[in-house]
Amino acid sequence: MEWSQRHLIGLEYYSAEEITHVLDTAEALRPAATRQEPPRDDLSGKVVVNLFFEPSTRTRTSFVLAEQRLGATIVNFSSAGSSTSKGETLRDTARNIEAMGIDVAVMRHSCPGAPQLLSRSIDAHIVNAGDGSHEHPTQGLLDILTIRQKRHRIEGLKVAIVGDIAHSRVARSNLHALLKLGAEVTFVGPPTLVPGAFRKLGAHVCYNLDEVLPEMDVVNMLRIQMERFEAQPFPSIREYARLFGLNARRLERAKHDLLVMHPGPINRGVEMTPDVADGPRSVILEQVTNGVAIRMAVLSLLTGASSRA
Amino acid sequence: MEWSQRHLIGLEYYSAEEITHVLDTAEALRPAATRQEPPRDDLSGKVVVNLFFEPSTRTRTSFVLAEQRLGATIVNFSSAGSSTSKGETLRDTARNIEAMGIDVAVMRHSCPGAPQLLSRSIDAHIVNAGDGSHEHPTQGLLDILTIRQKRHRIEGLKVAIVGDIAHSRVARSNLHALLKLGAEVTFVGPPTLVPGAFRKLGAHVCYNLDEVLPEMDVVNMLRIQMERFEAQPFPSIREYARLFGLNARRLERAKHDLLVMHPGPINRGVEMTPDVADGPRSVILEQVTNGVAIRMAVLSLLTGASSRA
Amino acid sequence: MEWSQRHLIGLEYYSAEEITHVLDTAEALRPAATRQEPPRDDLSGKVVVNLFFEPSTRTRTSFVLAEQRLGATIVNFSSAGSSTSKGETLRDTARNIEAMGIDVAVMRHSCPGAPQLLSRSIDAHIVNAGDGSHEHPTQGLLDILTIRQKRHRIEGLKVAIVGDIAHSRVARSNLHALLKLGAEVTFVGPPTLVPGAFRKLGAHVCYNLDEVLPEMDVVNMLRIQMERFEAQPFPSIREYARLFGLNARRLERAKHDLLVMHPGPINRGVEMTPDVADGPRSVILEQVTNGVAIRMAVLSLLTGASSRA
Repeated sequence: MEWSQRHLIGLEYYSAEEITHVLDTAEALRPAATRQEPPRDDLSGKVVVNLFFEPSTRTRTSFVLAEQRLGATIVNFSSAGSSTSKGETLRDTARNIEAMGIDVAVMRHSCPGAPQLLSRSIDAHIVNAGDGSHEHPTQGLLDILTIRQKRHRIEGLKVAIVGDIAHSRVARSNLHALLKLGAEVTFVGPPTLVPGAFRKLGAHVCYNLDEVLPEMDVVNMLRIQMERFEAQPFPSIREYARLFGLNARRLERAKHDLLVMHPGPINRGVEMTPDVADGPRSVILEQVTNGVAIRMAVLSLLTGASSRA
Repeated sequence: MEWSQRHLIGLEYYSAEEITHVLDTAEALRPAATRQEPPRDDLSGKVVVNLFFEPSTRTRTSFVLAEQRLGATIVNFSSAGSSTSKGETLRDTARNIEAMGIDVAVMRHSCPGAPQLLSRSIDAHIVNAGDGSHEHPTQGLLDILTIRQKRHRIEGLKVAIVGDIAHSRVARSNLHALLKLGAEVTFVGPPTLVPGAFRKLGAHVCYNLDEVLPEMDVVNMLRIQMERFEAQPFPSIREYARLFGLNARRLERAKHDLLVMHPGPINRGVEMTPDVADGPRSVILEQVTNGVAIRMAVLSLLTGASSRA
Repeated sequence: MEWSQRHLIGLEYYSAEEITHVLDTAEALRPAATRQEPPRDDLSGKVVVNLFFEPSTRTRTSFVLAEQRLGATIVNFSSAGSSTSKGETLRDTARNIEAMGIDVAVMRHSCPGAPQLLSRSIDAHIVNAGDGSHEHPTQGLLDILTIRQKRHRIEGLKVAIVGDIAHSRVARSNLHALLKLGAEVTFVGPPTLVPGAFRKLGAHVCYNLDEVLPEMDVVNMLRIQMERFEAQPFPSIREYARLFGLNARRLERAKHDLLVMHPGPINRGVEMTPDVADGPRSVILEQVTNGVAIRMAVLSLLTGASSRA
């Protein structure tokens, strides 16, 4: 296909065809991502800046590895909690960085919309690595790539996303892409964390995991932000784990080929028990491996380095 | 010319001829700095350590990009607030780093004189990236390169440097170099921030911006350190902005081709209004772009990689 | 020799032959480490992650330089004080990082045994860069390489290790390796810091430096952790320096060719006076230089890049 997107702000703004093209490109780049093939030079001479205004280890590391496997020149720019959080200053920061000469800015920011704001101010390609509770598109893409590898299709699959939906950019990115590709998405969690209004976006909403689990093809267990729970009208972590955590007994009623996913890092004993996390249905480490391939695909496509790897 | 300087501690210690040679070298390296030409290998096999004992994002990023464009091996060593602030330990730190095998140390430190101390203790080339309120020579050089690009000369130009002169290493580096190249420098700001003693260094001193603005060719607006103002015998930020900030109305009385400069990051609404910062007289982003070229030139000259690029 | 070790967890687990082989390999790599030879490509295409869960500047920088001199792709992952300190999460972190595709993990952690735990969970090669008060094997190796360069043997030498033995991973790594290579090790310090139980490991224990100093070939002066002293039943730093610090007068009674070592950073005036630290018997900077060569040797051997450089 003819690739026309200059940025990856969110999967909400990508078509089914574009999403599929990223997935196909990631498959083609997988041998290079997993070091079965030598590093590539698609981004040789190009400068990628990793602008992380929020702490991140996994996502940042995954992007850095993807950039390295493509031969990019990498600049890291972390300033969690700096004054750059303010909208106007962010724009100045971006324009300054651009004036130094960069091709791509990978950006994580606590404000929803910050990457979009950037994309209007500068010429470099923007990749959203997570903006507040808005989107985390490369996470959505790697989740869906993992599902497709295991099920060879997305259309018609039933996917439950479980946890703190209200604050989750992972849930939002998955929802947009899964619906476009023809899956059925059910948000599951306590009512305080799963606003009924999400039905308007096309998701089913359910407050009882056991009720929907038997018919699911995939469950994506979101990480519980422990620190956020203090203020929640929810009895306790233990209560949450009892109602919405995966364990061997609960899985007895699930399909035998259910895929268990988690964006990491897992709170073992909360979102799922260790035997489930490390069990045969878990594809959590495959997700991580696919993350590098997806990020390579996105960087490669946006910079026009390849219309197809 | 025959290049003989081993370090860049301050522009106070460089001759007019040497400063001009850095500017010429930066011009020659500009296509590589702006990625119109591919990366170079002048510093291939050389190890550059970025020793930042004070937080920095812009200057550090600019140095890293310059080092990458020259093919250097880069080691980052940040320890803001570490015990290495003490003179003696700093020397030990430096000698240890040198014993690991490095060619160049780019150094930012809160103590004036720290880079000079280093240059006496180790054999590596030292580049001062800002030492307290002493000097910030690469900033001075990039400011002057920007002026020269726009006016094709420095001699005879009238340059106002506005703001907290007393604590500004940028003001000091600009002053030394501009005077050597034949410009006339006027320091402008409230008396509490512009010591009259600076007249001894060859600068004019003025407490009224409107009085001198009409005859200026360049105004370099220094960043106000908001946190420092708390303790200042100065009414308020608002009062400062009213008296010493640039805005459209004040600019009406300036030359039509006045150059507006700022070392960044701008406090919009304080040092200047947004319309001035983004207006036709502003060369702020050119300054940033020139920063990479200047740093490439300095690194290249000091390591003897080229007598002229 | 046939190299069979996959990890470097501690010198306790290496034979005399293996230790000697690392030293020989480091000697062969020394010209590349000191930039007399160009960078190598032994680790080209291999990914090394530096996992530092404790702050470190010197050791981390030394590893990074070693990795760069071998052409490795480097990912830095620092998270001092993060939640990854907990055993279970550490394993998850490691497996996640491995799933991204890495070949070697260099790891510093405050928990003794953390690198060993990792080596059981993932396939990548593990290099212990210091685990609590357990081992710091590359420091032990570089210390011994320095001794061998100066004395051309280890067997039969008398080595005193002076200071806070109880909490020192440097002491432990040196002890294991020195004993295997036939040296005699004496731990020296106040009884509160030198448990008599260390005799069971094969060390002599002595509470009086002056008593043993005259017969020593090497003294390795450990760094005093000032902050730890607050809680110690020991009069004062000054008292410690008087009893266990090296100074010119105390050295009068030592062998003329005594080697003075220190793992750095030195508390000048505590472990030794400045004249001793910078004097003719001091090999402290040679230790630092050897650190890069030792780390190159370890990385090269573990990854099978060379059975002998």
